[in-house]
Amino acid sequence: MRYLSGPANRLIEELSKLPGIGPKTAQRLAFHLLNAPPEVAHNLARALVFARDNVRYCSVCANLTDREVCQICSDPERDPTLLCVVQEPRDVVAMEKTRGYRGLYHVLQGAISPLAGVGPDDLTIKQLLARLGEGKIKEVILATNPDVEGDATALYLAQLIKPLGLKVTRIAHGLPVGAHLEYADEMTLARALEGRRELT
Amino acid sequence: MRYLSGPANRLIEELSKLPGIGPKTAQRLAFHLLNAPPEVAHNLARALVFARDNVRYCSVCANLTDREVCQICSDPERDPTLLCVVQEPRDVVAMEKTRGYRGLYHVLQGAISPLAGVGPDDLTIKQLLARLGEGKIKEVILATNPDVEGDATALYLAQLIKPLGLKVTRIAHGLPVGAHLEYADEMTLARALEGRRELT
Repeated sequence: MRYLSGPANRLIEELSKLPGIGPKTAQRLAFHLLNAPPEVAHNLARALVFARDNVRYCSVCANLTDREVCQICSDPERDPTLLCVVQEPRDVVAMEKTRGYRGLYHVLQGAISPLAGVGPDDLTIKQLLARLGEGKIKEVILATNPDVEGDATALYLAQLIKPLGLKVTRIAHGLPVGAHLEYADEMTLARALEGRRELT
Repeated sequence: MRYLSGPANRLIEELSKLPGIGPKTAQRLAFHLLNAPPEVAHNLARALVFARDNVRYCSVCANLTDREVCQICSDPERDPTLLCVVQEPRDVVAMEKTRGYRGLYHVLQGAISPLAGVGPDDLTIKQLLARLGEGKIKEVILATNPDVEGDATALYLAQLIKPLGLKVTRIAHGLPVGAHLEYADEMTLARALEGRRELT
């Protein structure tokens, strides 16, 4: 937009590179940041640089952290025999929000996807196997996403881990809480039926 | 989220202060920025600080610019007898996109809104009247938003400007192009009817 000043255009351009932020939203954000007191933009910029420069992957579980070993891995209250394998750091956040899980995590940093060119070597599978080799973990919960890539990754991992003599489980698929049967897609309903449990 | 690292949480917090960015979106953006190459976050931060420190209000029209007098005000090709009064810099962007307007602008920096505590003195009305006093402008187009505040501001300005002997016009209200009558709200339809023109 040649009728806007160069620096403002540059900001809009950088903002629209963010996922889910189109040119219209980028423009709205830019105008907000330019109209707000200077601290607003400066604080955001400082938080950005500080986070990017200080956040790294935990050397144990590959989750995002600002230390060598993350808060969860170094928490003595967590059950060291239980390991939950997830795709992304945000999945750890989602799991932790349930407050129902007290074991440890392993973040794969993605899922196997031949179409996207992501193979097993691009994930933290080697580190996962090394962790399992230490002998502390008794059960591995495969909590990759219930889609083609996540399911394939879970299957692949199960084949690698089972020979180690560990219990390998997969999170349940089925109807979400509050859902109505009539609106459920067939795949979900089929999985819900498949995973039915006896009422006791 | 105590299970995320401090710097990441701080980034999420700063991002969720942006308009229209909720905690979920802020988290998604933060994870994107932390996973992407460091340049992505650094470029954004640099653009932010540079824009905030270099963009200011044009001393003539109060639009955002990186110079003393903005590109539009200093463009000799623009018609200096025509002045379009808008509320915000983004309205200038919207008007310019039409490519149908070749006059100058004046940015009010808001609209009169007693509820929000914005009075005439909080807007650039004094500067507007000073510009009109210079005698170059022949027509003032009031292009404030077609809502209560924008209409009130247009009315207020019209009363101030008319005694100066200038032509004062208001942008037309009516059905948007491509709209269907049955889905138009009554206010819009009433305005469209009111503003009907004879076909020649």
